[in-house]
Amino acid sequence: MTRFSRRGLLGGGAAAAGVAGAFVAGRASEAAPSDGVAPRATVYPFRGAHQAGIDTPVQDRLHFAAFDVRTDSREELVALLQAWTEAAERMTQGGPAGPIGPVEGSTDLPPDDTGEAIGLPASGLTITFGFGPSLFRDASGKDRFGLAGRQPAALQPLPHFPADNLDPARSDGDLCIQACADDPQVAVHAIRNLARIGFGTVAVRWSQLGFGRTSSTTAGEDTPRNLFGFKDGTANVKSSEAAALDEHVWVGASDDPGAAWLAGGSYLAARRINMTIEVWDRQPLGEQENFVGRTKDSGAPLSGGSEFTEPDFDLPGSNGPAIPVDAHVRVVHPDLHGGARMLRRGYNFVDGTDALGGLNAGLFFIAYVRDPRTHFIPIQNAMATGDALMEYLKFTGSALFAVPPGAGRGEYVGQSLFT
Amino acid sequence: MTRFSRRGLLGGGAAAAGVAGAFVAGRASEAAPSDGVAPRATVYPFRGAHQAGIDTPVQDRLHFAAFDVRTDSREELVALLQAWTEAAERMTQGGPAGPIGPVEGSTDLPPDDTGEAIGLPASGLTITFGFGPSLFRDASGKDRFGLAGRQPAALQPLPHFPADNLDPARSDGDLCIQACADDPQVAVHAIRNLARIGFGTVAVRWSQLGFGRTSSTTAGEDTPRNLFGFKDGTANVKSSEAAALDEHVWVGASDDPGAAWLAGGSYLAARRINMTIEVWDRQPLGEQENFVGRTKDSGAPLSGGSEFTEPDFDLPGSNGPAIPVDAHVRVVHPDLHGGARMLRRGYNFVDGTDALGGLNAGLFFIAYVRDPRTHFIPIQNAMATGDALMEYLKFTGSALFAVPPGAGRGEYVGQSLFT
Repeated sequence: MTRFSRRGLLGGGAAAAGVAGAFVAGRASEAAPSDGVAPRATVYPFRGAHQAGIDTPVQDRLHFAAFDVRTDSREELVALLQAWTEAAERMTQGGPAGPIGPVEGSTDLPPDDTGEAIGLPASGLTITFGFGPSLFRDASGKDRFGLAGRQPAALQPLPHFPADNLDPARSDGDLCIQACADDPQVAVHAIRNLARIGFGTVAVRWSQLGFGRTSSTTAGEDTPRNLFGFKDGTANVKSSEAAALDEHVWVGASDDPGAAWLAGGSYLAARRINMTIEVWDRQPLGEQENFVGRTKDSGAPLSGGSEFTEPDFDLPGSNGPAIPVDAHVRVVHPDLHGGARMLRRGYNFVDGTDALGGLNAGLFFIAYVRDPRTHFIPIQNAMATGDALMEYLKFTGSALFAVPPGAGRGEYVGQSLFT
Repeated sequence: MTRFSRRGLLGGGAAAAGVAGAFVAGRASEAAPSDGVAPRATVYPFRGAHQAGIDTPVQDRLHFAAFDVRTDSREELVALLQAWTEAAERMTQGGPAGPIGPVEGSTDLPPDDTGEAIGLPASGLTITFGFGPSLFRDASGKDRFGLAGRQPAALQPLPHFPADNLDPARSDGDLCIQACADDPQVAVHAIRNLARIGFGTVAVRWSQLGFGRTSSTTAGEDTPRNLFGFKDGTANVKSSEAAALDEHVWVGASDDPGAAWLAGGSYLAARRINMTIEVWDRQPLGEQENFVGRTKDSGAPLSGGSEFTEPDFDLPGSNGPAIPVDAHVRVVHPDLHGGARMLRRGYNFVDGTDALGGLNAGLFFIAYVRDPRTHFIPIQNAMATGDALMEYLKFTGSALFAVPPGAGRGEYVGQSLFT
């Protein structure tokens, strides 16, 4: 049978590449990572009603890239999305970026795959594409690609939040790609090859590597820990919560009549959050727990119970409520935000050392929401103004993208926006 | 029985911590990673004739940090090495950084472990310490800690190599720590906690994360690929080659009579090598292979055979020798350097994006050698002046450290230097 390998097509020629993707997707394994040892042979389907990489079980590693589009041609933009779709489908199924492969082609030509993933399995790779507000209108309001009329109402540059200290070189972008895998070399290989394919049409604006996922989308899985040492994302929307996904994550068919193309998609809010971990590490355990509102050990709310017990914000403690009024868990709780929940998919990062000899480290926060105006911006505002954790956080990057629905058979990602 | 866990000592009190390390080391598992799925429960002994992390099977992830010493007190320096030894032994055995643990102590005190590794196994963690030239004499020649008389003759700042483009903020350092593990969160946890313990005595000068090890020390294991997509380190000294380790890696008892304390240790040369991968990716496959002198597919020399076939530099090709005279494999081959071989332990890195929209990516090269004057500097010089690959490389960081022998029972790392 025709099947993919990192070394190109085995048992099939380049002509088979166009159809092999759909074939492979149909029999793809959906085994979920479980016990901390990643099943690196995991293959997730690329095509479907939603893009993979959102409610997919969270892989261990991230390479995220934002791109500036360098062309004014709508046709070139569409051609890029078509080429990216083909390459992404191939790589997520464990194959090379191009139909020929890293070593099978003519020695007179550059290979259509860069080769560093030869021999590495799919490793649960997912590749998820998004469109930034600036793809629809540039800073001067110009309609760059004839898309302005279809810009979703909710897809606006994020407001400046109190205490934001953003680096423009780590913020925004016309397009984004999130590559997640259980092997960082596989995630890096994906972004690198997509950037290579886009050379001349797009340029990488910023990119971010992450490790140590800080949220789980899998019910029953241990909640991972952030660099504060605390479990993070206990209340995350899980992939098994179909009703909650529809309510909080997927854009509904009638959410935005002017942007019906986004139905089945989502919004991706990214925030690069530096943590002042050296200062944090000198705080007493009890103070740390008061800042978070949960115990460091089990992650139970300070009002008692276990990790998944609902916090009781009214329970008195020895000095005010058991969960302080400025505790993180209270400030961002859905009960204070009209029931809004997020699907979080963030990763820890360490990017070397800052100028003061501290680790340049923190959380690369990613959340998928149905509408950032109800599900992200108010919560971020509440955090910025009332959360005790803010003393240890510095927001250094920020971006919002509309994530189109999944590509059906024969479609390219984002096709509904252009047709 | 007394044993460690990330949550502190189970079945033992803090008083047991002093002896438990040796106990655990004695029964530690030495199972080697094998089939690409890391056995995260792997525990390597911390104590021994040599430090772990040199000829240990290469783990998947790296966090490397260089430190500046901020005290003038020899006693404080020794106390730090003692504290680091205790913490490193604990963490490599799967335990917390301190005897109490991240959540077991008083809520009125900062925890003695930062907690992000709670629940994570040892993951093959090794922690390896080194001393830079500046620990012995500062830039003005001052003997900072009464150690100048014991400075190894070979431990001098690396010369400026042609084409070096070094960032001082990514170079040198008084001390270094290499943490390798099969889980990046475990490696980061180790460096972070050692930096925390050293607060006030040392400050992080620079640090580097790496993924995708680029060399193997295990005979028979697939040679990993660097970001050029080529197998790298085929001729690496393997941990099973006892005679080669003695000849090329471990400092001999009579190598340097003025620095007998280093016997059983080694030298660590670190070079941060940025690759211009976007330009590389546009080169024809045949050109790439000529630059390296090996095929991209199997890694066989262009003179024929398989990966481990010795290259035949005299075999004619269609246009000069089959292996070009400036091919990397020829320029650095032991035959041209008095038979000198290295034990390489480098990692790929991607540190976001450079100012031109390319990936800030490459190879964090680490080599352990018996004497950098014979085993590293001449090879680096030959590369800098005659290697076709240099067109695609930029050296942005550089450091040399003397790596003391392993600590015996009751000793601290580096004790032989101070007694």
